[in-house]
Amino acid sequence: MKYIKSNNSRLEIGSIEESSFNEVLITKYKSVKKVIIVDDNTHVNCLEYLLTTFELLKESEIVVLPHGELNKELVIVNNVWEALTEYGITRHDLIINLGGGMITDIGGFIASCYKRGVDYINIPTSLLGMVDASIGGKTGINLGEFKNQIGVFSHPEVVYIDIAFLSTLPSIELLSGYAEMLKHALISDEKLFDTLVAQLKGKEEFTEEILLTCIGVKNDIVLEDPMEKGLRKILNLGHTIGHVIEGHFMNGKKMTHGHCVAIGIVMESYVSMKMGLLDQKSYEKIQESILSFYEMPSYSNDEINEMVIMLSNDKKNRQGKILCALLTSIGACKYDQQVSEDMFVEVFLHFKNLQVNLN
Amino acid sequence: MKYIKSNNSRLEIGSIEESSFNEVLITKYKSVKKVIIVDDNTHVNCLEYLLTTFELLKESEIVVLPHGELNKELVIVNNVWEALTEYGITRHDLIINLGGGMITDIGGFIASCYKRGVDYINIPTSLLGMVDASIGGKTGINLGEFKNQIGVFSHPEVVYIDIAFLSTLPSIELLSGYAEMLKHALISDEKLFDTLVAQLKGKEEFTEEILLTCIGVKNDIVLEDPMEKGLRKILNLGHTIGHVIEGHFMNGKKMTHGHCVAIGIVMESYVSMKMGLLDQKSYEKIQESILSFYEMPSYSNDEINEMVIMLSNDKKNRQGKILCALLTSIGACKYDQQVSEDMFVEVFLHFKNLQVNLN
Repeated sequence: MKYIKSNNSRLEIGSIEESSFNEVLITKYKSVKKVIIVDDNTHVNCLEYLLTTFELLKESEIVVLPHGELNKELVIVNNVWEALTEYGITRHDLIINLGGGMITDIGGFIASCYKRGVDYINIPTSLLGMVDASIGGKTGINLGEFKNQIGVFSHPEVVYIDIAFLSTLPSIELLSGYAEMLKHALISDEKLFDTLVAQLKGKEEFTEEILLTCIGVKNDIVLEDPMEKGLRKILNLGHTIGHVIEGHFMNGKKMTHGHCVAIGIVMESYVSMKMGLLDQKSYEKIQESILSFYEMPSYSNDEINEMVIMLSNDKKNRQGKILCALLTSIGACKYDQQVSEDMFVEVFLHFKNLQVNLN
Repeated sequence: MKYIKSNNSRLEIGSIEESSFNEVLITKYKSVKKVIIVDDNTHVNCLEYLLTTFELLKESEIVVLPHGELNKELVIVNNVWEALTEYGITRHDLIINLGGGMITDIGGFIASCYKRGVDYINIPTSLLGMVDASIGGKTGINLGEFKNQIGVFSHPEVVYIDIAFLSTLPSIELLSGYAEMLKHALISDEKLFDTLVAQLKGKEEFTEEILLTCIGVKNDIVLEDPMEKGLRKILNLGHTIGHVIEGHFMNGKKMTHGHCVAIGIVMESYVSMKMGLLDQKSYEKIQESILSFYEMPSYSNDEINEMVIMLSNDKKNRQGKILCALLTSIGACKYDQQVSEDMFVEVFLHFKNLQVNLN
């Protein structure tokens, strides 16, 4: 078992059966009500294991949400709040979020606002959730096409990361998680990037060690800047464009969060090069590595206009300026870099030539 | 100008023109967008004064909400979040809540969750808002009939308390604020209680000094226990029953929040006496003082049953037990006192004889 101290929270990496989970349930939550929030996938694939392994969860109320980013929205949140009220959940009870990034994002928000805050524990079951979503205290839901527009910073009591859950995961979801790991590598360590690319190519095995390294990159940054006043913004690499792509294609093409982020990373690396921050060789290495696993979606000129308008509503903007995290090398990143709308138009036009129609 | 240091926040009491407001706008928010949230009353009575007095507010976006507790709900919150998105408000902009407790409660929640938190300033315009709602970092909205079921703890940058705004307030709203002041007195200081009762009887003048004293009582408690782990619970005196009455009568009889709290105080003082915590003479003094200004609403036996069921969902409950703040004397209070459902039934039945039909 590996332990990582996070802000007002603790991460445990290893088999959940050997983790502190059972002891925490006994010592802190023995006689309180428990609610487990799952999606329809983890309901089928992960819940039974948890219920049969941990005696104290037997009487839990189960809340099943429809899976997918499209359902990370206020109507669902409202329904869950009404259900919690009906179950008579008090602020001393416990919520357990069992699922991917969608469940830990929405479940964290639900718990943080219900009666002004109920304790919650995250058990991420997707690679994306393990390496990114369930760490760092960001919770949130979408507002229309605007990703994570509504949310709070809050902290789960503990996050249990058990890679055994990954065995139930479709490969497209593994790839989604890898995108965030690639991002963690790009902002911190070129060797880590090379290792991840080798794993993606099937030349090296996926290990708990690599997961731990990637989680460590994010956690160190979050510890230094929990509220995203400065440094933490480098974790947004790929997300300015990535969120817009995700928002834009939410109702149509099936693109995972990680796929959108991967495309965002390539495009923002291109911006980095165009703005003279990143050398061409590094850019080409990034483009080639990433685009061999993540396909460029197709979009029209009209769609470019729509996406550029959306960029101007990005959470990271300030005083009407579009701000990005941009790479200065593979392994180093600068935040609050101002990028013009014209530059984004140029980037979208450039990548139009590399499009693959995902429909 | 009087200054009170609160948690991550500052209270200023005095003329807003002589306060730091203008300077804060210039130094911290000069070039960011500003949104002023008002209700239809403060829109008519208070907004123009603010806009003509403070040059930097001229370009503000104005969000007008329907007044009243019934509108402190998620649909309205969602509409405002959509409006903020449309205005292109970023997390670096400023929200100003100009109104009574309803506006500071809902506006604080809106600001705290929009893009995971935007700075906000509270300018309470009602006595209730000045002495209670805008102090202490509780924000919230109702979920159906459950008062403040959804919310977060968060802190305005500054709260500006200017009693000039009270001149626009109907007397029924002044009385509503007095109820919270009476509560602050009952949990801390019998002399303060006597002074407030004398003011209500018209024998003494309302003063800024008294307001300051009552705010100080609340603020000292909140500073000691910001997250309501213990001591802060004494501020809930009158609110266990008060919230249930408010929730129950929300759609019918017109009862202000303070009116409900005042009735809650009398009933919970009766519980205090019945449970042997408070002597009969003190109880009678409280009952007589309060019921001469706040009328007992009428309810049927069926309604008693409904209200007792609602009590079991109170936020302050723990492990299925109904917990109350109860008085031990005029000026002293104990929290986490377990009260049985039977006792509540007895109390509601007792006060049925003192009913006045408010319809």
